[in-house]
Amino acid sequence: MVVGLGPGNRENFTPEVLAAIKSAQVVVGYHTYLDLIPDLLQDKEKVATPMRGEVERARQAVELAAAGKTVAVVSSGDPGIYGMAGIIIEVAQGRVPVRVIPGITAASAAAASLGAPLMNDFAVISLSDLLTPWETMLKRIEAAAVGDFVMVLYNPRSYGRPDHIKTAREIMLRYKSPETPVGIVRQARRGPEEKIITTLGDMLSHEIDMLTTVIVGNAQTRVEGDFMVTPRGYRL
Amino acid sequence: MVVGLGPGNRENFTPEVLAAIKSAQVVVGYHTYLDLIPDLLQDKEKVATPMRGEVERARQAVELAAAGKTVAVVSSGDPGIYGMAGIIIEVAQGRVPVRVIPGITAASAAAASLGAPLMNDFAVISLSDLLTPWETMLKRIEAAAVGDFVMVLYNPRSYGRPDHIKTAREIMLRYKSPETPVGIVRQARRGPEEKIITTLGDMLSHEIDMLTTVIVGNAQTRVEGDFMVTPRGYRL
Repeated sequence: MVVGLGPGNRENFTPEVLAAIKSAQVVVGYHTYLDLIPDLLQDKEKVATPMRGEVERARQAVELAAAGKTVAVVSSGDPGIYGMAGIIIEVAQGRVPVRVIPGITAASAAAASLGAPLMNDFAVISLSDLLTPWETMLKRIEAAAVGDFVMVLYNPRSYGRPDHIKTAREIMLRYKSPETPVGIVRQARRGPEEKIITTLGDMLSHEIDMLTTVIVGNAQTRVEGDFMVTPRGYRL
Repeated sequence: MVVGLGPGNRENFTPEVLAAIKSAQVVVGYHTYLDLIPDLLQDKEKVATPMRGEVERARQAVELAAAGKTVAVVSSGDPGIYGMAGIIIEVAQGRVPVRVIPGITAASAAAASLGAPLMNDFAVISLSDLLTPWETMLKRIEAAAVGDFVMVLYNPRSYGRPDHIKTAREIMLRYKSPETPVGIVRQARRGPEEKIITTLGDMLSHEIDMLTTVIVGNAQTRVEGDFMVTPRGYRL
């Protein structure tokens, strides 16, 4: 079972995820995620793995399942969105049954904190190029900007690639106004949450790191009080 | 409070959503959604509204809140994704405080049932043109196809617009191979769920309706046993 803890706060993962973890004999995950649920792990075998150890983590989980254990692989957010679901299915190759149980992804969590930026079509793009070629990422940023999508940026900045967000902004500015509202949410619904609503022109004057999700509006997005709203198009 | 029931199955909405509904004096929603949670509505004032009555529903909810009631507006999926969050904020105009509580959106629910199609960048597009001009939709379908995004189609077909999915497919076929895997999930995680994995070439030979979510792969997406997987790019 590949399960998603959502933002990480206990109030935000589903009863199905809770039941899956409770039913597991072994729980596998990056140690930061296991630390979110210590009370659920009593009397269970735990396999805590380092960041970026995804392939090894998947192999261990599949081996344990093949040996007859009931295994839950936990990640934050939704394991089906940039998460562990794919690598588990790829490593399992049908040798063990796999079940994916969804969680609240960062796009939903950040959007809820910002108000309603995702009321219309949107594109989700990860700015980590550890796994996707940079040229592909550039092509996607441009395509999404041309299509006037609301854009949700995952993994917007890390020590290894501090300039990707700058390049992404430059491409977006070719098609989107500098006044386009931008929401920056750090630790969305996990806390301590930090939320800023700024513009595409000013966004780089705010802190953006790997715990941040960035949402860039489309041509209709506007600021309404403390909220960022992309109108769905209803006549009021 | 604008809350999301997720796919509709009780196992798939979060404790925070449950607590919000329990704390409300009035629950407002399309009657199909209220019918999903009859036991939570005892001793509460209920405002059941017809489909497409979103503006009226929002007005009623805001009026009730302005009169001092604690109001929960329920919808399926995530109220922040093509849901009620935006219209509530627009109608409220700061007169009453608004809180959006996320749910599992159809993209996550359908992806979990299909395996792992959303391991890489994706675009979410609604094919309903009740609210978005058709030309804008065509532009977005083309842009997402040019960017080789995985594409998640919400509201893919209804009686009023049976041909949008055909037009969308024709545009996608200009940029994507007819062998591109396509997942079609009806009533994802609500049940009775129906799931088909087919190709962009063959997709129209399967039933697609308004209860369906369609996920079209990118150039790397493949079928792995019963699953549709978009590799994230790990070296195995």
